[in-house]
Amino acid sequence: MPQKVRIALDAMGGDHGPSVVVAGAGISLDRHPDTEFVMMGDRPALEALLAGRPALRAASRIVHTDVAVKMDEKPSQALRHGRWKSSMWMAIDAVKHGDADVVVSAGNTGALMAMAKFHLKTMAGIERPAIAVLWPTLRGESVVLDVGASIGADARHLVDLAVMGGAMARVLFDLERPTIGLLNIGVEEVKGLEEVREAGRILRDAARRDLDYVGFVEGDDIGKGTVDVVVTEGFAGNIALKTAEGTAKQLGEYLRNAMRRTLFARIGYLFARNAFAAVKDKMDPRKANGGVFLGLNGVVIKSHGGTDPEGFAAAVDLGYDMVRYELRARISQMLGTAHADMTAKPAVESMSS
Amino acid sequence: MPQKVRIALDAMGGDHGPSVVVAGAGISLDRHPDTEFVMMGDRPALEALLAGRPALRAASRIVHTDVAVKMDEKPSQALRHGRWKSSMWMAIDAVKHGDADVVVSAGNTGALMAMAKFHLKTMAGIERPAIAVLWPTLRGESVVLDVGASIGADARHLVDLAVMGGAMARVLFDLERPTIGLLNIGVEEVKGLEEVREAGRILRDAARRDLDYVGFVEGDDIGKGTVDVVVTEGFAGNIALKTAEGTAKQLGEYLRNAMRRTLFARIGYLFARNAFAAVKDKMDPRKANGGVFLGLNGVVIKSHGGTDPEGFAAAVDLGYDMVRYELRARISQMLGTAHADMTAKPAVESMSS
Repeated sequence: MPQKVRIALDAMGGDHGPSVVVAGAGISLDRHPDTEFVMMGDRPALEALLAGRPALRAASRIVHTDVAVKMDEKPSQALRHGRWKSSMWMAIDAVKHGDADVVVSAGNTGALMAMAKFHLKTMAGIERPAIAVLWPTLRGESVVLDVGASIGADARHLVDLAVMGGAMARVLFDLERPTIGLLNIGVEEVKGLEEVREAGRILRDAARRDLDYVGFVEGDDIGKGTVDVVVTEGFAGNIALKTAEGTAKQLGEYLRNAMRRTLFARIGYLFARNAFAAVKDKMDPRKANGGVFLGLNGVVIKSHGGTDPEGFAAAVDLGYDMVRYELRARISQMLGTAHADMTAKPAVESMSS
Repeated sequence: MPQKVRIALDAMGGDHGPSVVVAGAGISLDRHPDTEFVMMGDRPALEALLAGRPALRAASRIVHTDVAVKMDEKPSQALRHGRWKSSMWMAIDAVKHGDADVVVSAGNTGALMAMAKFHLKTMAGIERPAIAVLWPTLRGESVVLDVGASIGADARHLVDLAVMGGAMARVLFDLERPTIGLLNIGVEEVKGLEEVREAGRILRDAARRDLDYVGFVEGDDIGKGTVDVVVTEGFAGNIALKTAEGTAKQLGEYLRNAMRRTLFARIGYLFARNAFAAVKDKMDPRKANGGVFLGLNGVVIKSHGGTDPEGFAAAVDLGYDMVRYELRARISQMLGTAHADMTAKPAVESMSS
């Protein structure tokens, strides 16, 4: 039997703290009984929540701390006050020291990224970490990155993003050769950023066996699922993600209002209730909960701060999958090839001149 | 009686050419009988299409050309081959020489922008034009710009975008003091681009009587309608626009599939048919058709290339409104104030240090 997947939970993170974290862990444990948890947080609160859940209790170890990073704390503040002793830090520390395989936190994104970078450091050859999400599409799901870890990207960073996202797609979607697209804009007279074009040239020339670079994609290709991995720098990626969330909410709202407006519509709604539920389910943001921090010496999953137990369980599931399918080793190995390619081909550099 | 609104139509532009342009002009004329058209294009084709439309025929003048810019032509090619003689150029030229008040074209965006910049030139004090769209929101509509005229923006250009978008919102939404937001990302550890922060400081310090700058907004604020005007540089703006379009299509597709899947759903659909139609109508991309080129010495409206007569009519309506409510004069006047503000306050420059 393979080794258990050991998940460190920042039990004090998120808008609702331990109640959502413990309930979410319980849901995920039902799906993956070969999980062990180490929960960082307030022992009395956690013991009370675990009391009614014997299976989860048996799979969990508690490490006490009463220090929690606040949701509105600045990353620098959080680092100053929360280092060594906050639940968030201790969860990261468990991964750092090999006591856990992955961290899951619903806490303050900025603080989590700052602590993870500070403590785990970036992988060899990677300058800046990235945040990747699973984006529901008409074809299934795609990996989209970076959705906000850093602003701007040179060609080399975009290639790294492609490789890391590609590794994630290979692992999660079980694909030999995931398709990769670089997000760009299609307006003719602006031919896109030079960095994006250069990254395209590098990816095309590399002709990798493990990635299928298909070219530029535009914003509407994300929802279509045109490629398995959509690569962009963090500013545009974050705006794309939030804009899509906003649009989905907006249409949901239109639909709800329309279905309430007339008697016929209300009757129609009753008949089609299951169909509506199916659509709602497909659009359920809890299902795709969890940003993955890539490029660090350790896997960190960020759950939405305001999520409920189902949503937190989705983030824990994602962490489980990343460990079970050895994401980090896969990235390392694929990055090795990518950087070797880049070094071996000085011609690539001169192509932009 | 006020002067008529004189609209120059690139009758050969778009995927369907004259048939959609003429039919769209007819629809718009019904709504605004005080319109005059000058149609640039193939005379026999246009005469044939106008034959059955006496009201439109009476309101239209044809200027013959058999040269049309192709939809896939590069802007530089289009400028080389289409200058002086293409329907697109001639429509722009009519505005340049005061023979028309606004151009509407469903042609190649890149070529249209290149020709418009080349021939009309940017307004005094404006370095780069922008493309603005009307974005349907939960509160009504917002102006979003730039959606792809240029990539990147310094603080000064962002302030210009705010002023131009503000003028457009004042004119189209009849607001004294439209609210303005700068699109930014909310992830804590990356505090946004320095240019965006500096533009925010300039707008806040200016405390204009004609614009209400409310601060940063995120991608999901666009659909919520948090502000009347959303300002961003063209790369992120284009990606936001296309991503929203993609998400809307995706959800429409989910819904269509769900409503076909079971007998109950199909019955429900029949009852709620009108409600669905209302939502479809709200989401109808044809209703918000038309990008407005801002910052040029002349108003240019770009319709979607693949639109139908209703969509083209919406673009013509937009052009009509822009002229009727004197958008260009309003922008000029508001820009004058903005640039005076910036010159008068050298303190602003030093704040970033």
